[in-house]
Amino acid sequence: MASLGFDAQLIRRMIGVMPAVMDPRQLESSVCSIARTMELIGHPWTLLVLRDMFNGVRRFDELAEHLGIARNVLTRRLAGLVDAGLVEKVSYREPGQRARHEYRLTEAGWALRPVLIAVMAYGDEHLAGSDGPPLRVEHAGCGGEITVRMECAHGHTLTPRDRLRAIPGPGARYVPTPPTP
Amino acid sequence: MASLGFDAQLIRRMIGVMPAVMDPRQLESSVCSIARTMELIGHPWTLLVLRDMFNGVRRFDELAEHLGIARNVLTRRLAGLVDAGLVEKVSYREPGQRARHEYRLTEAGWALRPVLIAVMAYGDEHLAGSDGPPLRVEHAGCGGEITVRMECAHGHTLTPRDRLRAIPGPGARYVPTPPTP
Repeated sequence: MASLGFDAQLIRRMIGVMPAVMDPRQLESSVCSIARTMELIGHPWTLLVLRDMFNGVRRFDELAEHLGIARNVLTRRLAGLVDAGLVEKVSYREPGQRARHEYRLTEAGWALRPVLIAVMAYGDEHLAGSDGPPLRVEHAGCGGEITVRMECAHGHTLTPRDRLRAIPGPGARYVPTPPTP
Repeated sequence: MASLGFDAQLIRRMIGVMPAVMDPRQLESSVCSIARTMELIGHPWTLLVLRDMFNGVRRFDELAEHLGIARNVLTRRLAGLVDAGLVEKVSYREPGQRARHEYRLTEAGWALRPVLIAVMAYGDEHLAGSDGPPLRVEHAGCGGEITVRMECAHGHTLTPRDRLRAIPGPGARYVPTPPTP
């Protein structure tokens, strides 16, 4: 078993039960773009705070009132989003008013929109029940309803059960001992 | 202010600061497809358990080992996924072995794939750092890399900052008192 390189291991695994070419258990679970993203947005309330900010709700009091969230929890969530670079706190002053501040999505925050739309589309289809979806989101330019589509670089649209193949990327890290077959 | 119907309110709000036509604070925050979906998949570890199941890891021991998760937590997460109808527990017996069971995604579970791909794509682009993405996922049919695309029903591809419009759907529920302007 000495000095089995990755390719040899990979071939050995190909005869296994996995649908993908490689055995995903060879890869360190925490070195993963899903794990990293969920560290940012996986806390309770975070996605709803972001949802409201996408919808133009920007002030602390408005967020607290609409979400019905405890103020100390909202404070922590917003601080986390600011630290993560998804949101920035901006001061402004309206004529004759004291200075106030509001929270605005950064570019990195706006980039989460496909995630929110994918999460919403799932809920619309699987969790809305007989009432139907609570909200429609449409393209302001043309009125077409918004959705997300899985597709490949060659333009094929993918259904949830189409076969995909996972391949280690440049940032992969391997578990020290290979998993038991 | 008596008997202001929704349309009148809506027009009144259009002059406000919201980018969308309606004031989203009029809608009950918890009656929301994002909130409902996050009740299913928003617990710590859940998306990573699902990720491993999408990758073909199906047995309790394998999941526990790869994820490095406490067994009691994994038990709870799997029970929650079974209760929610995303996963089913299936018994099987290999020749000469005792009966075992494994966890398989249901159709409702497979339908979460675009969510996972969207979450992964975000992490690849914004959180992978100089090492690059840990994993590439490609279409087994053609080798094209997988991504998600936001698009509207009229076929327009949308960038994260394109203007969208939120419109109450059939399942909308309104807050009892209108928000302060």
